[in-house]
Amino acid sequence: MVKGKTFIIAGPSGVGKGTIIKKLFESRENLYFSVSATTRAPRPGEMDGVDYHFLSRERFLDWIDRNAFLEHAEFVGNLYGTPKKYVDEAMESGKDVILDIEVQGAEQVHRQRPDVVRIFIAPPSWEELERRLVGRGTEDPEKVRERLARSREDILLARYYDYLVINNDLDQAVEEIQAIITAEHCRARERYDSVTRRL
Amino acid sequence: MVKGKTFIIAGPSGVGKGTIIKKLFESRENLYFSVSATTRAPRPGEMDGVDYHFLSRERFLDWIDRNAFLEHAEFVGNLYGTPKKYVDEAMESGKDVILDIEVQGAEQVHRQRPDVVRIFIAPPSWEELERRLVGRGTEDPEKVRERLARSREDILLARYYDYLVINNDLDQAVEEIQAIITAEHCRARERYDSVTRRL
Repeated sequence: MVKGKTFIIAGPSGVGKGTIIKKLFESRENLYFSVSATTRAPRPGEMDGVDYHFLSRERFLDWIDRNAFLEHAEFVGNLYGTPKKYVDEAMESGKDVILDIEVQGAEQVHRQRPDVVRIFIAPPSWEELERRLVGRGTEDPEKVRERLARSREDILLARYYDYLVINNDLDQAVEEIQAIITAEHCRARERYDSVTRRL
Repeated sequence: MVKGKTFIIAGPSGVGKGTIIKKLFESRENLYFSVSATTRAPRPGEMDGVDYHFLSRERFLDWIDRNAFLEHAEFVGNLYGTPKKYVDEAMESGKDVILDIEVQGAEQVHRQRPDVVRIFIAPPSWEELERRLVGRGTEDPEKVRERLARSREDILLARYYDYLVINNDLDQAVEEIQAIITAEHCRARERYDSVTRRL
């Protein structure tokens, strides 16, 4: 069995990562979506291990001490992180892992695991990104401006990613990510040993 | 318009490159098959510019002097080479160029153009490669043994290729090459400038 690989899908807020990932899972098998751990309380209907791995603050801090996260951060008093355990188990079982994380988190993961494949999702234009952020209707203009400013910083890091996918056409974006996953499994440096072993 | 890229498809004799490339051209648009130049005389039915660019020896040597080849070699008294001109014109016009060349030629191309993408086609097993070489029925056992020995040397170089595709299932091999071409066009280092220019 071929071991799975980990793919980071990062990009600015409002770029449409969620929709892309949903469609990717509908159109491809053998993927594992990494579920984050958090110290925040479950909301009604949220299930442990599905929406989040809900941990006490004490346990979360213990996991940090044991270096059990690929990345972690604090937002408005709650801790969030990507546990290594489930990612590694999925890869061992032959599944490709999809990490839906923020650009800052992606940097942390890459420092620990330089072999993860990093895909940056870019908006077709700033106007479109602004339109999408405003279109959510859940945030005031000041928040939207803040998020856009942050997005401009995020996108400067796209240069250092492995791949850059533009979310102009949803189907094309998903097709490109599919191609990236397939192509990364054809990398000679990884396949060489298994091929020559059989020869 | 996005500029095309060059993909080397190399592999040992008998591995099935020709069939893979034929199917690739049937299933994907915007490809250009690089036609070799040669000093050998056209055979009945062969067309200049289609089967080969037929050159006089004098002209071929002049092209070598002007560094007009990506690679060239001599086989049984005839010169063969890949002219830069047509490859560059195709890429400028937005087409991806497919170079079907020997492993030694691939090394020459890569020295001149480190940005070409190298795909190595490997047989599923030595037994299968031997079966295919014998199955051609055109060569005596000694020639087959020679070719197999050469293939064993060739495959040692696969380690340094970008991608390794195993020709076990034809459809899967073609699908993987398709994915590689699509993914290579998503490389962040190449897309970054065009994306940020629009932002």
